[in-house]
Amino acid sequence: MLLSCDMVVEGVHFRREWYREAPELLGRKALAVNISDIASMGGRPRFCLVTLGADPGVPVEFLRRVYAGLVDLAGEWGVSLVGGDTVSLQGQGGGLLLDVFITGEVEPGRALLRSGAKPGDLIAVTGDFGLARAGLELLELPPEAGEGHIPGADRTAAIGRQLEPPVRLRESAALAALGPDGIHALSDTSDGLATQVHLICEASGVGALVHGDQVPVSPVTAQVARALSDDPLSWALFGGEDYELIAAIPPQHWGRAAAAVAAAGGGTALTAVGRFTAGRSIELQGAFGSKSPLAFGGWDHFSKASRALRHLAPGGSE
Amino acid sequence: MLLSCDMVVEGVHFRREWYREAPELLGRKALAVNISDIASMGGRPRFCLVTLGADPGVPVEFLRRVYAGLVDLAGEWGVSLVGGDTVSLQGQGGGLLLDVFITGEVEPGRALLRSGAKPGDLIAVTGDFGLARAGLELLELPPEAGEGHIPGADRTAAIGRQLEPPVRLRESAALAALGPDGIHALSDTSDGLATQVHLICEASGVGALVHGDQVPVSPVTAQVARALSDDPLSWALFGGEDYELIAAIPPQHWGRAAAAVAAAGGGTALTAVGRFTAGRSIELQGAFGSKSPLAFGGWDHFSKASRALRHLAPGGSE
Repeated sequence: MLLSCDMVVEGVHFRREWYREAPELLGRKALAVNISDIASMGGRPRFCLVTLGADPGVPVEFLRRVYAGLVDLAGEWGVSLVGGDTVSLQGQGGGLLLDVFITGEVEPGRALLRSGAKPGDLIAVTGDFGLARAGLELLELPPEAGEGHIPGADRTAAIGRQLEPPVRLRESAALAALGPDGIHALSDTSDGLATQVHLICEASGVGALVHGDQVPVSPVTAQVARALSDDPLSWALFGGEDYELIAAIPPQHWGRAAAAVAAAGGGTALTAVGRFTAGRSIELQGAFGSKSPLAFGGWDHFSKASRALRHLAPGGSE
Repeated sequence: MLLSCDMVVEGVHFRREWYREAPELLGRKALAVNISDIASMGGRPRFCLVTLGADPGVPVEFLRRVYAGLVDLAGEWGVSLVGGDTVSLQGQGGGLLLDVFITGEVEPGRALLRSGAKPGDLIAVTGDFGLARAGLELLELPPEAGEGHIPGADRTAAIGRQLEPPVRLRESAALAALGPDGIHALSDTSDGLATQVHLICEASGVGALVHGDQVPVSPVTAQVARALSDDPLSWALFGGEDYELIAAIPPQHWGRAAAAVAAAGGGTALTAVGRFTAGRSIELQGAFGSKSPLAFGGWDHFSKASRALRHLAPGGSE
């Protein structure tokens, strides 16, 4: 049995106005970040409970639509919403929070952990990185700042990734099916790709070399970063909230792993971004071969004085 | 498998200054209300997760002691704390919240529900009622109000009951062991005795007659109520946060049930306070035989204009 919980809090993880048009997405996100915790161990989500705290100023219709979105996503992935708690936050400074508890199943002894990576394993990731951060940057842009010339479709894609994370259950199941020889470690990247590399290295007693130019960054992310005069690789490495998977794959099983993820039906590729290494150094290799220590950390590195929101990605502990 | 969650929120369920001397008690309460949810179904608690939200103004030492109290109570009752989430509530109006998620076990088909009460069953309760409310009244007394002459030991007992609820796992196990013939329904009374009678009646399709003079009220509760010119029976029926058990016991099994609870070792008696009845009326019989409808509800009936705290008992949903 797997158990996890993650809370999303207004003003910390999101602003309510982001979800004014589609409150359902907030419910979907609150559950998706929890499903990601189960996917990160190669499990199947089963049951969830939801604690909803809201001040009386939050319209009931908004809450109803948040719940509806959560219930929809639960149905899409076979998760049963079996209960919860509701609390009035009157007198609390108000706001809205959703704390989701989720249970999952995995065959005994087959849960995938951070601690199994071995020197020589490829660092494999699903999907691409930095787009959720691009969406956050756009959502949090001060009104007086210019966005440059970002096409509407790119804007929508970036903000959509921030508002609703992907669910990588199919990819997780495909990777878990490789068996203990084919995959040594698995986690998700909710706290940022760089942070997760560090956590796997720490748990496994290995080092890592990440090739910056192999980290998958979508053209949209690059476009938004350019428009905002920011660095897409920094967003990809440290931005957080990507909710992609990261795995340690022995090189001789790489072909099988990539094929399994491609065949999983989620339309998501597996990309090797480096290797776990003997020793303890965790390094980033630049485009011209230069190596530098890969920083540990997410948002705090990039917080801007102009941004009132101190954004902490949910999903950090299980 | 049983799953439940309950959140306690500063300013809604407690004030932080109540726990200044003993933050451990807050951690114990956050877990105890969840254990009560498992006890209310005749189950054994197994694992818990804790989401802690706190603004940066809450001292780390306070949080450490809250956790320590929770871990202590978990150890006392064989519950394993296996994870959780932490969230900074900066910018949120601050404060402190603890959301506990708990799993429990019960033999398949043996979970005790609210829905099994039958006409003629005795309404049986553990312990006594109203003391937690007495404690809340004392904690929330405006400084200018006099307390009358309440002995210090009584004050301590009442406040202690408010700050840390009892754990009725032994009594729950003893009642569950009576088997489906010996006990028809079980719940806890976190939301108030009257409310729970209503909920059992609704779930079971029965009525009830509660004898006011049979509701167990401790001498301390009566003393505090007198000193504050309030009604101890109202506190007992509607005060909430007693975290006692309420059961539907067929009369022919009463002796066995009372003996089982007495033998459970918790020092807690089982008291019959009335009967479930055919029909749908839910009534309170006064000391002189007069009957009146038993109100549904807890705090809102008794909220006082002078009380800023809108107190909602945790433990209401599972």
